[in-house]
Amino acid sequence: MNITAFIGSSRANSNSEQLTDYVLKGIPHKKIDLKNVTIEPIHDLRHDDNGFQFVADDYDQIIQAFLTSDIVIFATPIYWYSMSGIMKNMVDRLSHAIRDERFPQLKEKLQTTEAIVLAVGGDDPHIKGLPLIHQFQYIFDFLKMPFSSYIIGNANKPGEIVNDEQALAQATILNKQLKARTL
Amino acid sequence: MNITAFIGSSRANSNSEQLTDYVLKGIPHKKIDLKNVTIEPIHDLRHDDNGFQFVADDYDQIIQAFLTSDIVIFATPIYWYSMSGIMKNMVDRLSHAIRDERFPQLKEKLQTTEAIVLAVGGDDPHIKGLPLIHQFQYIFDFLKMPFSSYIIGNANKPGEIVNDEQALAQATILNKQLKARTL
Amino acid sequence: MNITAFIGSSRANSNSEQLTDYVLKGIPHKKIDLKNVTIEPIHDLRHDDNGFQFVADDYDQIIQAFLTSDIVIFATPIYWYSMSGIMKNMVDRLSHAIRDERFPQLKEKLQTTEAIVLAVGGDDPHIKGLPLIHQFQYIFDFLKMPFSSYIIGNANKPGEIVNDEQALAQATILNKQLKARTL
Amino acid sequence: MNITAFIGSSRANSNSEQLTDYVLKGIPHKKIDLKNVTIEPIHDLRHDDNGFQFVADDYDQIIQAFLTSDIVIFATPIYWYSMSGIMKNMVDRLSHAIRDERFPQLKEKLQTTEAIVLAVGGDDPHIKGLPLIHQFQYIFDFLKMPFSSYIIGNANKPGEIVNDEQALAQATILNKQLKARTL
Repeated sequence: MNITAFIGSSRANSNSEQLTDYVLKGIPHKKIDLKNVTIEPIHDLRHDDNGFQFVADDYDQIIQAFLTSDIVIFATPIYWYSMSGIMKNMVDRLSHAIRDERFPQLKEKLQTTEAIVLAVGGDDPHIKGLPLIHQFQYIFDFLKMPFSSYIIGNANKPGEIVNDEQALAQATILNKQLKARTL
Repeated sequence: MNITAFIGSSRANSNSEQLTDYVLKGIPHKKIDLKNVTIEPIHDLRHDDNGFQFVADDYDQIIQAFLTSDIVIFATPIYWYSMSGIMKNMVDRLSHAIRDERFPQLKEKLQTTEAIVLAVGGDDPHIKGLPLIHQFQYIFDFLKMPFSSYIIGNANKPGEIVNDEQALAQATILNKQLKARTL
Repeated sequence: MNITAFIGSSRANSNSEQLTDYVLKGIPHKKIDLKNVTIEPIHDLRHDDNGFQFVADDYDQIIQAFLTSDIVIFATPIYWYSMSGIMKNMVDRLSHAIRDERFPQLKEKLQTTEAIVLAVGGDDPHIKGLPLIHQFQYIFDFLKMPFSSYIIGNANKPGEIVNDEQALAQATILNKQLKARTL
Repeated sequence: MNITAFIGSSRANSNSEQLTDYVLKGIPHKKIDLKNVTIEPIHDLRHDDNGFQFVADDYDQIIQAFLTSDIVIFATPIYWYSMSGIMKNMVDRLSHAIRDERFPQLKEKLQTTEAIVLAVGGDDPHIKGLPLIHQFQYIFDFLKMPFSSYIIGNANKPGEIVNDEQALAQATILNKQLKARTL
């Protein structure tokens, strides 16, 4: 079972990445640290005569991750009550990717790619992070990706996630479930 | 009364910009087209010993707009059920801006800067755009900015917004109200 | 075209009913004033050996309304950020009704019964009423009822709805659209 | 520390009540089973010349529970994506209770009464139950009640809650935290 985690934080060793590490402890996986790859914002050319144009950046890495993973994890800090801008640009570009002639199989592949969301914020995330969860649900519904679970973590300063007993317990259970499936 | 509209679309003459034009018809205002300014993603250094570092891009234009406007309009297409990535990066950078020693008055100024949201989408926006409205509410609550109103438009292809009778009626009423205040 | 409006307020001549009257002005329709009919709370016996038991109250009127209407309007005050308790009991009882052997055609009939929601509240209803709209969406999705539109009104004291210019404009447009369909 | 749990299910030994039992295991508490008390729907007379009128039902029990509890638990099945109608009627009547001259201290008392929500549903409750959580947040915000935590459980048939490993783990942690506070 192939697992890729997209890390959306702008910080090194962020709380959202640490939560991801709990979830994936002892499980082989790949990480893509979005702050270290170049992803241009979408230029919406859906309705242009020539359609979308090739963009010379690192987005093909993202597409390859979707094409080769059974599970993808969206790990994001909650910035201003939604995913980080760098993760948003990654998501926005899916509008292009699913129409990209170079990857005709992407759209169908996504329908069997399971999605997990890990979101960590410091301002009442169990309430104010809920619209973000709704948006991920709509995104996965549109793509017909199964949205298997999410964990919301409460943390602000670096490393604080270790104090969120509820989030760690949920991560431990999810880790166990994923391990059982990878054997 | 100074009004600035932030235009978040990646398209020229987008539906969200057209809706903005209806709202601001006959009213002096400034527009900042986010696709034409350079805004780096946030690098969250809140907890770093040296704090945030100067970023050499166009963000000072955004800050000046906030500092000099009585009303700011966030006009965004609904991309994947939330604001566009380029607008999200603009919002994310507020975390830096409100701590930027060069603009000590920004935080207080925002508390009297009225916010209006215009969001246009093509996939059931009156339902699937609601989490975005919630997020804007949380953003403005955090900044203590008065959130006076929003309009959701239903449009997909270029120019379709003219068919959304409800959105245009709301825009007309809002235009009339704004005009009454600018006299 | 048959239209039934369910009125969920506990007040006579409530703001939600007045908004309904704007929407239905000049259009033949039936009103069911929920405060004047007796509807017992649901007793969830789905998993009981004997299933649901007959309840001697006025609920058959509700079922007949669903069976004979092309459009049903849920007009509710926003009490504590959701529909009134008397309307909630009406909705809860649908769990029984769609399993009631006396009405085998109900479930299928609902799939072509269009739903409209009119919700009026006095505490920031355009933000705090949004979860209610989400819930109606989930309800109609479950029943496969088309959810064609909603209007949120801002009013508190009796009659205040007449001051909500935006809501009245939306009601006028909806009235015109409904009239065009009834000709 | 006084704890009261309001049980909103129409079933005996419901999943929401079982989840409550996990949370309160070994902790003294009181339970009010709403299906066994008589609570009339609200009659909104806020704006009537004579104001609210005395209602002869069991609601004083509810008020006494609020007046004497340090923590109140709202345990509800998710019926049609929100709280059950009998719990909604209980909540609606708070509009009267906080204005009831017989209980002048209620409004202030609530500001130190901590609220916990336990909600169990069978149709994707971790997504479709989120609007209900938002509504509880708005309710507690209005009353200035501290909303300390919530647990969403996934169960449908009687007893299924025991299979929801995540919900039980959260209940165990909450139980431990409550125990630590009652010593």
